Amino acid sequence: MSTQRVEILGDTMRRLARRGARRNLSRVLSKVRPGDVAAALRKLVPTEQLFVVRLALEDFPDSAGEVLLELEPGERRPLLEQLAPSEIAGLLSPLAVDDSVEIVDGLEEELREAVLALLDRPDRDELQTQFAYEEDTAGRIMNTEFFSLPEDTSVGDAIAKIREHGEVEMIFYLYVVDPEGRLVGVLSLRELLLSVPSRALGEIMNRGLVTARTDTDQEEVAQLASRYDFLAIPVVDEGRRLLGLVTVDDVIDIVQEEAEEDFYKMVGTSDDELLYRERAWRVAGIRLPWLLVNLIGLTLTGVLMKQFQLRLNEAFLLAFAPVVMGMGGNIGSQTMTLTVRGLATGRIGEGGGRMRRFLFQQIRIGLVVALVCAAVAAAVAAFLEQNPAYSAVVASSLFLAIVLASLIGSLLPMAFERMGIDPAVASGPMVTTSSDITGILVYFGLATLMIDWLVR
Amino acid sequence: MSTQRVEILGDTMRRLARRGARRNLSRVLSKVRPGDVAAALRKLVPTEQLFVVRLALEDFPDSAGEVLLELEPGERRPLLEQLAPSEIAGLLSPLAVDDSVEIVDGLEEELREAVLALLDRPDRDELQTQFAYEEDTAGRIMNTEFFSLPEDTSVGDAIAKIREHGEVEMIFYLYVVDPEGRLVGVLSLRELLLSVPSRALGEIMNRGLVTARTDTDQEEVAQLASRYDFLAIPVVDEGRRLLGLVTVDDVIDIVQEEAEEDFYKMVGTSDDELLYRERAWRVAGIRLPWLLVNLIGLTLTGVLMKQFQLRLNEAFLLAFAPVVMGMGGNIGSQTMTLTVRGLATGRIGEGGGRMRRFLFQQIRIGLVVALVCAAVAAAVAAFLEQNPAYSAVVASSLFLAIVLASLIGSLLPMAFERMGIDPAVASGPMVTTSSDITGILVYFGLATLMIDWLVR
Repeated sequence: MSTQRVEILGDTMRRLARRGARRNLSRVLSKVRPGDVAAALRKLVPTEQLFVVRLALEDFPDSAGEVLLELEPGERRPLLEQLAPSEIAGLLSPLAVDDSVEIVDGLEEELREAVLALLDRPDRDELQTQFAYEEDTAGRIMNTEFFSLPEDTSVGDAIAKIREHGEVEMIFYLYVVDPEGRLVGVLSLRELLLSVPSRALGEIMNRGLVTARTDTDQEEVAQLASRYDFLAIPVVDEGRRLLGLVTVDDVIDIVQEEAEEDFYKMVGTSDDELLYRERAWRVAGIRLPWLLVNLIGLTLTGVLMKQFQLRLNEAFLLAFAPVVMGMGGNIGSQTMTLTVRGLATGRIGEGGGRMRRFLFQQIRIGLVVALVCAAVAAAVAAFLEQNPAYSAVVASSLFLAIVLASLIGSLLPMAFERMGIDPAVASGPMVTTSSDITGILVYFGLATLMIDWLVR
Repeated sequence: MSTQRVEILGDTMRRLARRGARRNLSRVLSKVRPGDVAAALRKLVPTEQLFVVRLALEDFPDSAGEVLLELEPGERRPLLEQLAPSEIAGLLSPLAVDDSVEIVDGLEEELREAVLALLDRPDRDELQTQFAYEEDTAGRIMNTEFFSLPEDTSVGDAIAKIREHGEVEMIFYLYVVDPEGRLVGVLSLRELLLSVPSRALGEIMNRGLVTARTDTDQEEVAQLASRYDFLAIPVVDEGRRLLGLVTVDDVIDIVQEEAEEDFYKMVGTSDDELLYRERAWRVAGIRLPWLLVNLIGLTLTGVLMKQFQLRLNEAFLLAFAPVVMGMGGNIGSQTMTLTVRGLATGRIGEGGGRMRRFLFQQIRIGLVVALVCAAVAAAVAAFLEQNPAYSAVVASSLFLAIVLASLIGSLLPMAFERMGIDPAVASGPMVTTSSDITGILVYFGLATLMIDWLVR
C-alpha cells in the first residue's frame, strides 16, 4: 500500500472510529494488512486508536497483535497502558515468543507481571526464560520457534517433516543437529529443493556456520547478518545447542535503532523522550547532565570575556566575540558528528593509520573552511569599523579558532574511544565547551597583544 | 566470525601483504568468507588493501567482487580507482546486476564508461538500462534476475523448474504471471513445499501483492519491506509487468543510509565527506553554506551585544551573556534533533493533533529544564556578584531563553516540513541563529529594564 493510500485508510478509520461505526470499521480492517493498519493508526488521536485496537482484538484476535507489533515502541506503549492485562494477554497468545517479548518489554514491571500471570503456563515460562537474558542481547530478542533435524535425515524425509510443521513462521533455513543436539550444519530451503531426495542432510549441509551466543550484543548479531547477507542467525549455548534464531526482520529494526542512538546521544538526548511523553521530569533528567556540563563551560567563557572587557574596555571588540565563539562551536560539532559516526561504523578505527589519515583530512578541510570564513568576517569587520588592524585580528583569530575546533572535534572523540568511554555520550558537551573557551581565549588574547594597533 | 577473530584475520592479512607472501595469503583467503575479508581489510593501509584485492581477483575471480561489495562505498571507491578498467570488469562478471550497479555507481563517469565498454554486450546493456533510472529509485537498485512462472503451472512442475534454475541467487518467493506477463500473484518457497503437487499455482498463490514502481524512492521500498516483513519487493512497470526485485539485503543498507543522512544534514555536513577524502575544497563546499548563514547570525548577535554594552557600560553583565546565548542554542539543538527525526520517521506528523501534542510536550520539558538551569545559574551569579537583582535577571532571562529555544527547536522544523523544505537541511543553522539572537535580546533587554536595581 502506497503512502498515499495509507493516508486515505487513516482518514477512513478515523471517521468510522469517531462515529463508533463498528460494523463498517470491522469490514475495512478485514481487507487490509496489519502493517497498513499500524501505519494508518498514526493519523488517529489516542481515543480513536484505542477504539480501533479494541475492535481488532474482538473481531480479529489472531492479527491484532501484529498491528501493535508494527507500531514504534513509543506509539505502542501508551495504547497498551490503556488496555486491561487480560486484553494484552489475548493479543500475545497467537504471537511468536520474540514478538511477545517485544510487546511486553516496553511495559512497566507491574503491568508486565500482571500480563504474564494471565498467560498459559508454557507461554509464561517461555517469556520468563527470555526475560532472564540481558536487554539488547541475542537471547532476549531471539525467536525460539525454529526447525531442526538430525543429520541422518534424508532430503525427502526433511521435506515431508517441513510439510507437517507448516505453521513454523519465517522458515528460510533448515538447521541440522548431531545426536547430542549440537548444531552442526545448515541448509536453505532452496538447497533442499535442489537436492536428490535420497541423500542425507549431513552429506549436503553447509558446515561453516555463523552463530551468536545468548549474550552476544544485538548490534553484533545485526552486523553478522548484514555482513554475510543471511536471513537468520542461529543462537547457541556454550555446548553449541541451538536455542533460537534472530531473523532478518529484527535485524532491520536493530540497524535503524542503533544508527539513531548515537546522534541523540551526541546532543544529550535520547529517543526515549518519545516514549516518556507525559513525564517532563524524567525527560529533563536525560537532558540535564549534558546541559549542566555546558552551563559550567559557558560561565567560564563569560567570566573570561568580562575580565578581558574590564582590562581592555573597548566595546567594539565585543561585536566579534560571539562570531569566534560560535563558529568554533559549529565546526567542532560538524567534525565531531563525522568522527563519532565514523568510529561507530568502523570507518575510522585503529590499524592501518586510519585515525591519522582522518585527522589530516579534517585539518585540511578545517584550513579551507577557516580561510573562507576568515575572509568573509574580515570584510564584515572592515565594513563595521573601518580599522584594518581590527579586521586582521578578527580574521586571524577566527582562522585559528576554526582550525583548533577541527582538531578538538576529531581528537576528543578518538581519545574517548581509546579510554573506553562511549564517544557519542561524552563528546557533545566537551567539544562545545572546549571550542567556546578556545575561541574566546584566542580572540581576546590576540586583541590584547594588538591593542596598541587596535586603538589609536 | 566474531569481531575479535576479524581483528586477528586483519593482522594476519596485513603481515602477509607486507611481506608479499602471495601463497600464504591465498591460502588464508581460500578459508574465509568474502564478508570477513571485507571487514578485515579495514585494518590495512591502501597499498596493502590493493595487494589483497589484486590477489583475490587472480586466485578467486568468482568471489573477489563480493569482497568489494561488502565494503562501504567510501572504502571501495579509492580501491577501485587504483585498478585498471579491465580488472574492474573482471570483478563484475560473476556478480548479479544490482551488485554490479552498486559497485560501478560510485565511480567517476569516465572510469565507469571505460569499464562498461569492456563488458560483454548483454551485461553492458543490462547495466545501462539500470543506469537510465534515477539514483535512489527502485529501478536503479533492483535485481533483474528473478524467477516467475505462468499461473497454470502445477506445483510439481514449479518445483522441477526451480531445480533446473538452481543458480538464481536469493530466491525466497516464486512470482506468478498471467499470459500477458503481468504479475498476478506470489508464493513463498515454503508455501510451495506445503502444497499438493498437482495443484496449479494460480489456485494457491497470494493475490494481495505489494509492489514498487521503477521510480519509487528506495526509502519507500525499504519502508514497505519493513512494514510487511517481506524478504523482497517486486518492481513492476505501468503495465504491471515484473522487471526486478529489491531484496532484503539492500533494504538493510538503505535503512542504515537514510537514518544517518538526516543527522549529517542537521549539522551541515554529509557522509560524502568520507568519500571525498582527498578533496578538501569539495568537502568545504558541503559545509560552508551552513556556516555562512550562521556567521551572519552570530555577527548580528555580536553587534547587539556591543550596542548594549555601549549603552549600559557594565562589564559584569558580560559574564552571563554567553551562558544565556549558549544554553538557548543547546536546548534548541536537542529539541530540533527530536523534531527532525520524529518528522522523518512519521512519529510526529499531520493528523491526530500529533504535532500539537509534541509541541506541548516540548514546552513542558523546556519548563522543567529552564527551572533547573535558572536555579543553578542564579546560584553561580550570586556567588560571583553578590547582587540579588543580578541573580534575578540571570535566572529569569535564562528561563525565558530556554523556553523560547524549545519553541524554536520544535516549531521551525515543523514549519519547514509544511513549506515542503527538507527540515533536516534548513533547521540546523536557523535554530542556532535564532536561539542566539533571542538569548542576547532577552538577557540584555531584561538587564536594561532592571538597570536601576542592578547598579547602585
